[in-house]
Amino acid sequence: MIRIGIFGYGNLGRGVEAAIRQNPDMTLVAVFTRRAPNTLKIMTEGVPVISADDVLSMKDKIDVMILCGGSATDLPVQTPALAEHFCVVDSFDTHAKIPQHFAAVDKAAGASGKVGIISVGWDPGMFSLNRLYASAILPDGKDYTFWGKGVSQGHSDAIRRIDGVKNGKQYTIPVESALDAVRSGTAPELTTREKHIRECFVVAEEGADLERIEREIKTMPNYFADYDTTVHFITEEELLREHSGIPHGGFVIRSGKTGFDLEHNHIIEYSLKLDSNPEFTASVIVAYARAAFRLHTEGVSGCKTVFDIAPAYLSMKSADELRASML
Amino acid sequence: MIRIGIFGYGNLGRGVEAAIRQNPDMTLVAVFTRRAPNTLKIMTEGVPVISADDVLSMKDKIDVMILCGGSATDLPVQTPALAEHFCVVDSFDTHAKIPQHFAAVDKAAGASGKVGIISVGWDPGMFSLNRLYASAILPDGKDYTFWGKGVSQGHSDAIRRIDGVKNGKQYTIPVESALDAVRSGTAPELTTREKHIRECFVVAEEGADLERIEREIKTMPNYFADYDTTVHFITEEELLREHSGIPHGGFVIRSGKTGFDLEHNHIIEYSLKLDSNPEFTASVIVAYARAAFRLHTEGVSGCKTVFDIAPAYLSMKSADELRASML
Repeated sequence: MIRIGIFGYGNLGRGVEAAIRQNPDMTLVAVFTRRAPNTLKIMTEGVPVISADDVLSMKDKIDVMILCGGSATDLPVQTPALAEHFCVVDSFDTHAKIPQHFAAVDKAAGASGKVGIISVGWDPGMFSLNRLYASAILPDGKDYTFWGKGVSQGHSDAIRRIDGVKNGKQYTIPVESALDAVRSGTAPELTTREKHIRECFVVAEEGADLERIEREIKTMPNYFADYDTTVHFITEEELLREHSGIPHGGFVIRSGKTGFDLEHNHIIEYSLKLDSNPEFTASVIVAYARAAFRLHTEGVSGCKTVFDIAPAYLSMKSADELRASML
Repeated sequence: MIRIGIFGYGNLGRGVEAAIRQNPDMTLVAVFTRRAPNTLKIMTEGVPVISADDVLSMKDKIDVMILCGGSATDLPVQTPALAEHFCVVDSFDTHAKIPQHFAAVDKAAGASGKVGIISVGWDPGMFSLNRLYASAILPDGKDYTFWGKGVSQGHSDAIRRIDGVKNGKQYTIPVESALDAVRSGTAPELTTREKHIRECFVVAEEGADLERIEREIKTMPNYFADYDTTVHFITEEELLREHSGIPHGGFVIRSGKTGFDLEHNHIIEYSLKLDSNPEFTASVIVAYARAAFRLHTEGVSGCKTVFDIAPAYLSMKSADELRASML
């Protein structure tokens, strides 16, 4: 049994807790929180909730610690710190800062002899893997990543910060005609506006100036100004009834050419359609926790990403079983 | 520079030759053939064509030998034999016999200290990888593999063996409604007939009994009897004009559930749309030849499959570059 700890108990932490139940070679040992432990009610009976301050008391009872905090401020500090004592897996997703995060975790895990796997999930994660495989196979080609249809947490937060907005949710939606153009093999150049549209569902406070809110959303730099954005004002009831899920997904497509005269075109497409973004991310993380455990058992240490890990490490099946049943 | 040898020069061998040109870290050293070498004209200037009997004369001049023979009789003999002297990559695709082929290559490559990578291509190969990744991520789920639209060589050969048939080509086509049912997340049970249809283009000999030919095709056990098959009789000119390509492709889809009550559904889909089946297969093989070379350089030996190889080994980019640009 691989003994798992969950560090941080939000949507992702709950997703990890649920995923562990689906993997019979794993057991949840403890959940760690910065809140008062007795205020936290988790789903798994008999598993203790422990203060984050006391995490080292569980040093020898946990094989892999799964970090479920945010990329902005939690993980840059927590992952290297915990890698000094545990094998760790995180879902660090600030793409531009991955090299420095890697270096910090590599230093800590290298010194402790543990394995740290960072940036696990679907983007970064499965989408990254598919970008790598496809570009290695088709060196003469072009990559496209589309996101959605799905809820963007950052954009939803941005809407909610606007004066007069009570609640709101934003969907990122890939433009179907852009997807079709890419799939046709013409390798089009696409602008930001041509690839995605943004759809907002907004609950306004009573008496708020709806025109101003809509204008402020549509002209918001970085978030909305570069996109075709639609804004729907709805009631709080409708928002809760119709838009309480956290679906997401997307597409990674490579269009590339082969042949002596590059006369043949090929399309490699990977897509995800996810009812629950955090639960799917958690499911990927849990598979990589298995890999971290096995690599550590083999004497490996240091920081790894999905690029560095042979696929067989993710599966419950043995190498013989995999070859016989899946190859 | 990774020095490559091509063993066998049919469609796949030519595809490997073309792919090597797209990978600037590789060079083609020689093509080996069982035909009389002087009867073979290859595309790359200055590269010798050598008799397969003399392959050992190139023992120290080739880093990776790519085997381009057939799975029925060539590869079961050639891959283990050549693995005694070279790092090898093959595309052995008789799924049921992979375990015994693996054992034979592992024994030879283990003894010689070389690396052998077997069953590389898209199925087995990229499709296998996607089955593994998806099932590791979503343990509660169901896998589906669809092939096509594409030319099946085996089925085309079967048509051409019928009395009165001059030429013929068979397309395997996935049933769109079955694909849609799988994508909807209902995890349907699908029969052979429900998943694929078969479309045949047949050139009959003058005066042949077309009704009998059509009946013989549609009732042929294993090949056509379990499918809805359509037969079109066309002229040789039309066949050559419209059906001379070797396109193929397909879909690997996993539908799986997560959550404490398995209340959320997820669809992972990987698809290929290939203008040239052999050139795409060759492109995958060439990326894995890079992996074989690097693993051997690191002191690894024995037989490997796509399951055993970390994705980073396939790319021309360094680990730092990959993390900065693709993760």
